[in-house]
Amino acid sequence: MADVITKRAANYAQWYLDVVKEAGLADNSDVRGCMVIKPTGYALWEKMQRGLDKLFKDTDHVNAYFPLFIPMSYLAKEEQMAEGFAKECAVVTHYRLKAEAGKPLHVDPSAELEEPLIIRPTSETIIWNTYKKWVQSYRDLPLLINQWCNVVRWEMRTRLFLRTAEFLWQEGHTAHATAAEAEAETLQMVRVYQKFAEEWMAMPVMVGPKTDGQKFPGAVYTLCIEAMMQDGKALQAGTSHFLGQNFAKAFDVTFKDQNNKEEFAWATSWGVSTRLIGGLIMTHSDDNGLVVPPRLAPTHVVIVPLGKNDAERGPSIAAAEKLAAELRALPRDDFFGYEPISVKIDTMFDKQPGFRYAEHEVRGVPVRVEIGPKDIEKSACAVARRDVPGKEGKQFGVPLASAADHISKLLRDIQKALFDRAKAFRDSRITTANTLDEFKALFPAEKEGAGESGLKFVYAHWDGTRETEDRVQAEYKATIRCLPFDGPQEPGACVFTGKPSARRVIFARAY
Amino acid sequence: MADVITKRAANYAQWYLDVVKEAGLADNSDVRGCMVIKPTGYALWEKMQRGLDKLFKDTDHVNAYFPLFIPMSYLAKEEQMAEGFAKECAVVTHYRLKAEAGKPLHVDPSAELEEPLIIRPTSETIIWNTYKKWVQSYRDLPLLINQWCNVVRWEMRTRLFLRTAEFLWQEGHTAHATAAEAEAETLQMVRVYQKFAEEWMAMPVMVGPKTDGQKFPGAVYTLCIEAMMQDGKALQAGTSHFLGQNFAKAFDVTFKDQNNKEEFAWATSWGVSTRLIGGLIMTHSDDNGLVVPPRLAPTHVVIVPLGKNDAERGPSIAAAEKLAAELRALPRDDFFGYEPISVKIDTMFDKQPGFRYAEHEVRGVPVRVEIGPKDIEKSACAVARRDVPGKEGKQFGVPLASAADHISKLLRDIQKALFDRAKAFRDSRITTANTLDEFKALFPAEKEGAGESGLKFVYAHWDGTRETEDRVQAEYKATIRCLPFDGPQEPGACVFTGKPSARRVIFARAY
Repeated sequence: MADVITKRAANYAQWYLDVVKEAGLADNSDVRGCMVIKPTGYALWEKMQRGLDKLFKDTDHVNAYFPLFIPMSYLAKEEQMAEGFAKECAVVTHYRLKAEAGKPLHVDPSAELEEPLIIRPTSETIIWNTYKKWVQSYRDLPLLINQWCNVVRWEMRTRLFLRTAEFLWQEGHTAHATAAEAEAETLQMVRVYQKFAEEWMAMPVMVGPKTDGQKFPGAVYTLCIEAMMQDGKALQAGTSHFLGQNFAKAFDVTFKDQNNKEEFAWATSWGVSTRLIGGLIMTHSDDNGLVVPPRLAPTHVVIVPLGKNDAERGPSIAAAEKLAAELRALPRDDFFGYEPISVKIDTMFDKQPGFRYAEHEVRGVPVRVEIGPKDIEKSACAVARRDVPGKEGKQFGVPLASAADHISKLLRDIQKALFDRAKAFRDSRITTANTLDEFKALFPAEKEGAGESGLKFVYAHWDGTRETEDRVQAEYKATIRCLPFDGPQEPGACVFTGKPSARRVIFARAY
Repeated sequence: MADVITKRAANYAQWYLDVVKEAGLADNSDVRGCMVIKPTGYALWEKMQRGLDKLFKDTDHVNAYFPLFIPMSYLAKEEQMAEGFAKECAVVTHYRLKAEAGKPLHVDPSAELEEPLIIRPTSETIIWNTYKKWVQSYRDLPLLINQWCNVVRWEMRTRLFLRTAEFLWQEGHTAHATAAEAEAETLQMVRVYQKFAEEWMAMPVMVGPKTDGQKFPGAVYTLCIEAMMQDGKALQAGTSHFLGQNFAKAFDVTFKDQNNKEEFAWATSWGVSTRLIGGLIMTHSDDNGLVVPPRLAPTHVVIVPLGKNDAERGPSIAAAEKLAAELRALPRDDFFGYEPISVKIDTMFDKQPGFRYAEHEVRGVPVRVEIGPKDIEKSACAVARRDVPGKEGKQFGVPLASAADHISKLLRDIQKALFDRAKAFRDSRITTANTLDEFKALFPAEKEGAGESGLKFVYAHWDGTRETEDRVQAEYKATIRCLPFDGPQEPGACVFTGKPSARRVIFARAY
C-alpha cells in the first residue's frame, strides 16, 4: 500500500495526489474542475463543520441559507466585486431542456432567462440585497449570520481540495451599527479560525492583515490565517474581511440609529472551505499516507485482532469487541464534541497483518491496537500511534484492563504532539532576508516536481507599494502572505527599492 | 402578534404563509422561485439533519459529495429520467462574464461550454457515472452512500418549503450485489423515514408503495411516507425507490460476482427535503403561530423574568439565570441528540408581558417559564406549554427547586402529546368510500382560500389501471397516495369502473 505513494522528497505534488487517492478522500469527476468528495474525505469535512459551527454558535452566530443563483445585475452593483469575481463563473441562461422525437436532448431555445443567473462565487451581493429588507433600525443590528453551502468559481487549473471549480465552504456575513463593532467582529472571526486551525487541525498559523494587493475585492481590509505546508509553501487557510459600508451602499442597506439618523450599515464577511482538507493533509501526512489529528479523525481507533485459525482468532475478536465497547462507553466530553470515541474492528483475516496495518496507516487512523494469541495470554495488547510510524510509536504489553483509558489519553497526546511537531517545523523554516541577494537565494527558480523544496517563510522589509509587490511576485513567484500581528514591528529599508519600510512582512511561495 | 396570523378556518393557505413569516422561518427571495431560509427555519433544518443523519449512520450509511453540475448527455442516458426530470431545470451554458468599458456587465459569448451543464435536479446520473469507477467486484458492494445538498427544479408555482425551485435535501444512493438486498434497503429506508417522522417530527405517516403512475421516473417501484395536514390534504414526506438495474445498465456499472460472473449492480435511492419543514408546520401549528415538537425545537425553553422596576426585576433575573444554568447542566441523552437543553432568557422588559408571551408563542418555543415578584416570594414559577395555549396549559406554583426536572419531563410529555394529537386527528379523518356517490361527496369542488376544508384520506377500491387513476385525478383532484402496508387487504370492485380490485388504496387531495 505504502509503495503506491510517491515519496515527498521525490515529488511533493504527486505525493499529495497519491495520499488523497490512497486514503480515499476525493476523486476528480468527469465534470471539468469538479471533485467527488469520497466518504472518508467528507467525514473529515463533517468533523471540521462540527468544530467550526460550535465556535460560530459560541460567538452568537446563527446559520441561514440564501439562494444559489445571483442575478447578473447584482454583481455589477459593487464595482470591486464586479472586477474581482464577475469574471470566471458559471452562468445559467436557460431553464428548460427539450426531448423531441428523433432529436437528441437539447436546450430549449424558447426558454431563455430574461436575466442570466450566476452560480454564487460568494454571496455578499445576494445576502446584502436581502439584508435591505431585514434592517430598518439599530434594534435590528447586529445580524450575525453564517451559511454552509457550495460555491463555484470557474478555475482553469484545479487541484483536489486546494482549488476546484465547485467547493464547499462557510461564509459569514454580518451587519453592524458601527465601524468599531464590525472591526471587532472581523478580528474575532480570524481568531476563531486560528483557534480552529491550531486546536482542531493542529496546524499552527500566522495571523494578520493582507496587503491591499492580496485583499478580497470589495473589502477595506482582509485578515487571514496562513499556514506552512511541509514543502515550505504557504496556504491561505481562512480570511475575515472588514467590508466597511461598501455593500450597504451598493445595496442601500440603511438603518435609523439611536438619534433617528439614517446610516449605512457596516459589514464583515469571513470564510473557510474544503481547501482546509488540503491544508490538513499537507501539514501532517507522511510517506506512509494520511495523518489526521484525533479531534478530526472519522475513526479514532482501529483494533486488529490476529490469529492463524478460528481457535486463535476467537479470543482475539472477543477481546477486541470488549475493548471497543469500553472505548465507546467512555464519558463524552468537549474534546471530541460530545461524540463517543469512534472504533472499528478490522476483520480482514484473509490479508497479512502487514497489509492490514499499512491499510490503516494510509487512511490515517490515529491509533491502531493489535491483539493476537500471545497478547491474549498476557491479557494485553499492542498500541501503535499513527503519528510515529514503526516500532518507535508502538507500545507492547498494554494491559487490556486499562487499555481504554490508556488510548483515550494517547489520543489527546497525539493531538498535542502533532501541533508541536508542525509548529517546530514551521518555526525552523521562518527566516529573515536583509538584502536582495539573501532574498533571491531563498526563492530560487522553481523546478516542476522537484520534491520537498526547503522553501521558507521570509521576513523582509517592503516599501508598501503594489508595484514592488507585483514585481517580486513576477520575478520570484513569492507573494506577501500577511503582516503578522505577532511579527517584528521595527521600521527599515525595503529590500527591493531601498525606500522606507514600516515593518517586515512575510514573503512565501503559496498554493 | 397573533392578530397578524390569519385563522386556519378562514384561509388555510394564507394561515400557512403567515406562520412561516411571523415565526421567522423563510422569505421569498428576489430570485424567481428561490427562498431564503431564515435563521429559525434553518435551525429547524439543522435539527432534522442531525436526527436523520444519526439514523442513516446507525444503519451503516456514510456521507459523500458529488458535483452540482450534470453534463446534459447524462440525463439522456436513462430514458425514464430524461422523460421525468430533463425538462424544467437550470442550464449552465457559459463560464464567463465580461466587463468592458462603457458596456454593462454581460455574458461573454466566446465562453460557451461545449456541452451544457444541468444543475442537479437529483443525482442518480452523476453518482452512477461515478460508481462505474468504484465497483469492480462483489467485494466493493454494497455502496451505502448519502449526500446532503441543494437541488434545483424549475417549478412554475412555488410555495415556501413545500415547492421551491432550489431546495435542500438528502439523497441516498446505494448499490447492491442482489435484488433482494436492494429491496431490503428500499424498505429499511422508508422505515427510517417513518421513524424520523413519528419520533422526531411527531407526525404520523402511512407507509406503502406508490402506484406506477405516481412513482419516481426510473424506479421499478417507490415506497413513501404520507402525512395528513390539518386541512386533510396529504403531504408526500419522503420516498425510497427500488431502481432495479436501470441505472447500472444506463451507466454500465457491472461487477464480478462470487462465481466470477459479470453482473449489473442493483440500486436504490431515497430522499427527504426542506419540504418536511412545511409538513411540520401544517401538522402541529395553530392560530397563535408555530408549534414545534421539542426534539426539533431550536430553543426548548424560554424564561421570562417579570417586574415593574429594577428592584423587582433583579431577583426574577437571578432566578431565571439559575434555572437556565440548571436546565443546561442536565445530563445529556439520546432524546435531545446529546445536546444540552437550549434555554433563552427574555429581557424585553420594555414590552408588556402579554406581548412577550405572544412573541414566544408565535415562534413555537415548547415551554415558557414566567418568574415574577410573587413567584419569587413563593420560590416558584409558572410553566406554560406551547401545545396547550392559554390557562389550560399553564401550571402555577412550580417550585424553582425542582423546576429543571419538571421541565425536562414536560418536554418529553409534549413530544408524545403532539404525536398522539396528530394521530387522533388523522385517524378521525380516515374513511372509506364504497360507492362513487360516497367518493364524490368526499371530494367536492375546491374553493380557493376556503379555509380548513374537512378533507379526508379515503380508502376506496381501484381497478389498478393508470387510466382510472388519471381520470379520478382530473375529475376530483384526488390522487392515490399509497397502498398502505397496514391497510385493509381484501379484494373488491373498483368504485369507478366496477372492475376487480385487489385491495383498497388511499385517495386524497395532496400538496
